[in-house]
Amino acid sequence: MGNCWTYLGPQKKTNVRFSLPAVCFVWQIAMIVLFGIFIRYDEESDAHWVEHKRTHNITSDIENDFYFRYPSFQDVHVMIFVGFGFLMTFLKRYSFGGVGFNFLIASFGLQWALLMQGWFHALDPATAKITIGVESLINADFCCAGSLIAYGALLGKVSPVQCLVVTLFGVTLFAVEEFIILDLLHCRDAGGSMVIHCFGGYYGLGISWVLYRPNLHQSKQLNGSVYHSDVFAMIGTLFLWMFWPSFNSAITDHGDGQHRAAINTYLALASCVLTTVAISSLSQKKGKLDMVHIQNATLAGGVAMGTAAEFMISPYGSLIVGFCFGIISVFGYLFISPFLEKYLKLQDTCGVHNLHALPGMLGGFIGAIVAAFASEGVYGKEGLISTFDFVGEYADRGTGTQGGFQAAGTCVSVAFGLVGGTLVGFILKLPIWGDPADDDCYDDEVYWEVPEDEEIILPVLEYNNHMIHKHQDIAESNFSLEQS
Amino acid sequence: MGNCWTYLGPQKKTNVRFSLPAVCFVWQIAMIVLFGIFIRYDEESDAHWVEHKRTHNITSDIENDFYFRYPSFQDVHVMIFVGFGFLMTFLKRYSFGGVGFNFLIASFGLQWALLMQGWFHALDPATAKITIGVESLINADFCCAGSLIAYGALLGKVSPVQCLVVTLFGVTLFAVEEFIILDLLHCRDAGGSMVIHCFGGYYGLGISWVLYRPNLHQSKQLNGSVYHSDVFAMIGTLFLWMFWPSFNSAITDHGDGQHRAAINTYLALASCVLTTVAISSLSQKKGKLDMVHIQNATLAGGVAMGTAAEFMISPYGSLIVGFCFGIISVFGYLFISPFLEKYLKLQDTCGVHNLHALPGMLGGFIGAIVAAFASEGVYGKEGLISTFDFVGEYADRGTGTQGGFQAAGTCVSVAFGLVGGTLVGFILKLPIWGDPADDDCYDDEVYWEVPEDEEIILPVLEYNNHMIHKHQDIAESNFSLEQS
Amino acid sequence: MGNCWTYLGPQKKTNVRFSLPAVCFVWQIAMIVLFGIFIRYDEESDAHWVEHKRTHNITSDIENDFYFRYPSFQDVHVMIFVGFGFLMTFLKRYSFGGVGFNFLIASFGLQWALLMQGWFHALDPATAKITIGVESLINADFCCAGSLIAYGALLGKVSPVQCLVVTLFGVTLFAVEEFIILDLLHCRDAGGSMVIHCFGGYYGLGISWVLYRPNLHQSKQLNGSVYHSDVFAMIGTLFLWMFWPSFNSAITDHGDGQHRAAINTYLALASCVLTTVAISSLSQKKGKLDMVHIQNATLAGGVAMGTAAEFMISPYGSLIVGFCFGIISVFGYLFISPFLEKYLKLQDTCGVHNLHALPGMLGGFIGAIVAAFASEGVYGKEGLISTFDFVGEYADRGTGTQGGFQAAGTCVSVAFGLVGGTLVGFILKLPIWGDPADDDCYDDEVYWEVPEDEEIILPVLEYNNHMIHKHQDIAESNFSLEQS
Repeated sequence: MGNCWTYLGPQKKTNVRFSLPAVCFVWQIAMIVLFGIFIRYDEESDAHWVEHKRTHNITSDIENDFYFRYPSFQDVHVMIFVGFGFLMTFLKRYSFGGVGFNFLIASFGLQWALLMQGWFHALDPATAKITIGVESLINADFCCAGSLIAYGALLGKVSPVQCLVVTLFGVTLFAVEEFIILDLLHCRDAGGSMVIHCFGGYYGLGISWVLYRPNLHQSKQLNGSVYHSDVFAMIGTLFLWMFWPSFNSAITDHGDGQHRAAINTYLALASCVLTTVAISSLSQKKGKLDMVHIQNATLAGGVAMGTAAEFMISPYGSLIVGFCFGIISVFGYLFISPFLEKYLKLQDTCGVHNLHALPGMLGGFIGAIVAAFASEGVYGKEGLISTFDFVGEYADRGTGTQGGFQAAGTCVSVAFGLVGGTLVGFILKLPIWGDPADDDCYDDEVYWEVPEDEEIILPVLEYNNHMIHKHQDIAESNFSLEQS
Repeated sequence: MGNCWTYLGPQKKTNVRFSLPAVCFVWQIAMIVLFGIFIRYDEESDAHWVEHKRTHNITSDIENDFYFRYPSFQDVHVMIFVGFGFLMTFLKRYSFGGVGFNFLIASFGLQWALLMQGWFHALDPATAKITIGVESLINADFCCAGSLIAYGALLGKVSPVQCLVVTLFGVTLFAVEEFIILDLLHCRDAGGSMVIHCFGGYYGLGISWVLYRPNLHQSKQLNGSVYHSDVFAMIGTLFLWMFWPSFNSAITDHGDGQHRAAINTYLALASCVLTTVAISSLSQKKGKLDMVHIQNATLAGGVAMGTAAEFMISPYGSLIVGFCFGIISVFGYLFISPFLEKYLKLQDTCGVHNLHALPGMLGGFIGAIVAAFASEGVYGKEGLISTFDFVGEYADRGTGTQGGFQAAGTCVSVAFGLVGGTLVGFILKLPIWGDPADDDCYDDEVYWEVPEDEEIILPVLEYNNHMIHKHQDIAESNFSLEQS
Repeated sequence: MGNCWTYLGPQKKTNVRFSLPAVCFVWQIAMIVLFGIFIRYDEESDAHWVEHKRTHNITSDIENDFYFRYPSFQDVHVMIFVGFGFLMTFLKRYSFGGVGFNFLIASFGLQWALLMQGWFHALDPATAKITIGVESLINADFCCAGSLIAYGALLGKVSPVQCLVVTLFGVTLFAVEEFIILDLLHCRDAGGSMVIHCFGGYYGLGISWVLYRPNLHQSKQLNGSVYHSDVFAMIGTLFLWMFWPSFNSAITDHGDGQHRAAINTYLALASCVLTTVAISSLSQKKGKLDMVHIQNATLAGGVAMGTAAEFMISPYGSLIVGFCFGIISVFGYLFISPFLEKYLKLQDTCGVHNLHALPGMLGGFIGAIVAAFASEGVYGKEGLISTFDFVGEYADRGTGTQGGFQAAGTCVSVAFGLVGGTLVGFILKLPIWGDPADDDCYDDEVYWEVPEDEEIILPVLEYNNHMIHKHQDIAESNFSLEQS
């Protein structure tokens, strides 16, 4: 586009040539130093494994946790980088920013997450070291997901430096709320309805609320998709959808825990697709489907099953959850998002409220209800203990109490998201981060070298002729014709 | 396009605003009710697994079938949703419908498949319950594949409601023919040459034959690809191609069965690519390759190995199968499809005859031949029994007999496909399903909110200048030049 | 484009209608014959597994190597076909050739690799047979990677027949250098920094050097990306990036070896992304990011960890490696590639020097250093033996000596690449392979039936109006405006 006009100075200073490299270098060096001080291999990834096996009477290498969790880890990894990344390529001229900044956020976030989660969960008091294995990698990817969800609300409106700031605080807050919810309250939340989706969604919404841009309509031409960008986004949708059973089962108990979580999520997602299609069609005067709904609301069933997937919710229970959340999520896109934007000044680019915040919160409560109604009859005595980890100081906790704590945990995640997001929003308002002007939003030109498009468009007339011909046919067969 | 002309009434009523939501809601609710009545977790996904392990002397959670099959399941899942879905994005203006309706079909189909296959294969007579685990999920995905293949023949010509009807009957017919072939005839068909590809292909062709549109040429402008849509379709091709070894090995016997099926399929597919390229190049006056062949015929080796993959067909046998089917499939695209369209009035959008129906049927016969020639010398006594499941009432069946039954099974699948497809075709001819008019086919506008494309095409002249310059160079170096 | 001009005779004969089918058929038949003579299932994929289990006291099918390696194999398979394939779709009009010839190369290469690697590594002297299992498939895929890397340097400048010739010799040379490095020198190189990346990169550069085209600037209009092709390339980047931990751990020791290699690669890649972004931004006057860097340099950390990933390099060591190679690789794209092209006449389409050759070579030396400093204190006595395979005739080799051999191995791979590439380059210079003229490079028209694009571009004015409006706004708020 530069061959028409160039302007010498932007209204806002979007040049990140100093700040972006500075932040990347300094933070990456900090990671190296902190990893040097704290992080070591755990006994299953250390070369002492041969001895460990002998001393612990482990008969086969297949008992290494790597073989229980690595396939799920890789699926989760695909969700984080291709799933979230491509889901955010739907904007016509922000695909680079969508997939590229997603890549940057997650790459920094997972390192910081290994440290933060390590300090809270895996610090050996004797050696002051954190030991990591494949489960740590999964948890680090999960932790990134919170910040990536938040990025969804901010897509197109923030600079890459701001993305990194969002991630630094997002991962920190995540680790704290996760510690409170999982350790102090002893909640179960394998797929992270509460700790990931609910927190991440409200965190992003909190930030977006503070960063409200009253003149964002100046970029409204670019706040939409084109045909091909919608197909790219479907890559993201489908990889998220397909691998969500792995997401919800990645860190559940070996054996039946992983098995059941995968089945439940698979069913909820399938059910969710049908109701999404139904409501999307119903909402349009001509019954046409809206790609925004198909790309997003079909995933809400997976979000909502994040807590309950490992429980004995039963196959039809999973279908019911998916059924409801396809409806709820599309309703969110149709009514809640416009409402939030108009009355609460909330600009939510990807609609994370409808896909993550709300389904995550409700998923937390569903988990609470399912936990409260758990019984020895359904789980078996040992099954109940292993599913809810009723051991040690929690050996006497009843399922009703557990349900109460699950509900409390959900509230904690909402609070952390909203309060943390608001505070981080104010930090991001400082005029030093290189964010784009209102009329530069949703435009890759600001932070990327964009290739000049040289489209080859010689035979266009053929298509137009075809269309004209088609309408003439119709006209002749006495349908009325009007010029719009 | 709406800014040129809009027409008030279409020739056909394509408004699915009532029918699509109604079908989705009613069928999804039916699924929930039926799941509530019939479907439960099996002993490996139930919380009683801890007790089951103890009572069955299972020493480690790794013995849970989840760890044998979940990675393959996920690969199959990717094939169903991304593989089939993106393979069908090749049309220039039907990518939404290709990937979107594929998503809808599979999401409904897998639920109905769990029930149908459950009733035939996993119904506990004592409790009247179906129990499901990871292998059930794989089988449900397989079952969807039949209907998705059929959709390939109908792509662009049917409404989403018709897609769901195709799936309802497709899954039902599938479960019946599968029961006959696998249980009554005791055939082996791990990768589904017969039960999936042969059946699915002929089912789609049967439907397409009944739905013949004499004036489909009115949409011929849209029945083709553009550059980018062909690249999107390659995503589908490659994920199908790469994960086909998982498809053919997903439900084979633990151990050598899965191992061998993966190797055989891997080899057949590699070989298939070379002969596809060879014939595709040979068929063009200038030796240029045709993307349609590369996208489809390269997969025929996997289809053809669906039955024989778990047998001791030997590595070079697999290469021979791939060799032949690359050739057969490209020949199909070159000669058989035009013939079928011209003389049998068969409009087959994706050419499923050449990729699924014919290779599936021949693959069934290959399986029969390989089974007939199986011997204790090659398999070992125990290997022969475990590979062909010669136990119980089949303990005395010889390999020759088995070969005969395999061939009979193939005929059953052809018959079910053709007869079932024809009947379903007549149901779909009822004027209530909202299918598009002949000049509206292959156009996403009919069922989707399509974004208006705002292409940025300023620097086009550069490319045209380049092309003109290039041809001038050629002209000057005394090559003759002509205006086409 | 044919509707403007067609020319009757090209300057170069690019018609491969005879040569391409001939090569494909003859070589594929040769593969079948050689497989028939040499290749059999190994004991874990043969139907005798049931007996093998009993005679070897293997208690469970899960001990079959299939379950240790198949998930990693599938990840590697995705890297080879989708990763490398889509990474090469970045050119605006060579996406078919990028992903399609990649497909062809790998499909032939893996068959030839099974034979070549089998003769060197798995030939049973008693039976003169090669036995294959899942690890052989991984190694065959690895072997293809060498030729695919070489293809990256040649992208857009060679015919499909030349691609196959590159592969035939590439795989042959690979097998020889691999035998020297892994068997004769007893080096460790699980992820192939030396044998795959260093060799493959220099092999491609050697060929490209011989095939230097002084008039390649005639195609410079097509040697670049468009917006959508850059997004397609990101699919390749991300699948390579995500699955690299599987690549580097696919054939390492069961247990801790696979576990540690995955962790180390995961960390190096994450760190690499941050320094890539930093240097890319720093190198641009306005701090904008360059997609070429993001698509390629982010992967250099994985290449550089190819040898050291299975060693106890420690988590922070992995971060340091990633840190350095993000920087080195972007510097390569900024300074080394232009230098090589200008002074050494090296035209390297994808910049494989910066992503594979250089990081691979340096990765080999890093492996040497880490090996030299290995100690019983860090690895444990048994861990040291199992990690470096200090058994049999190598039982007395010290880690210092091992380091020396590792360094020597790296030199062998460089030498094989450069010398082999140069020789193969001269073979490819023969005027019989149908390579494109200088002004036909990077153009799919030469070897593919390219669909005529019928873009629908009615509402273009809206966007242009938007842009003009935006610039007027800026102009009015007293920024200076200039016409470029």
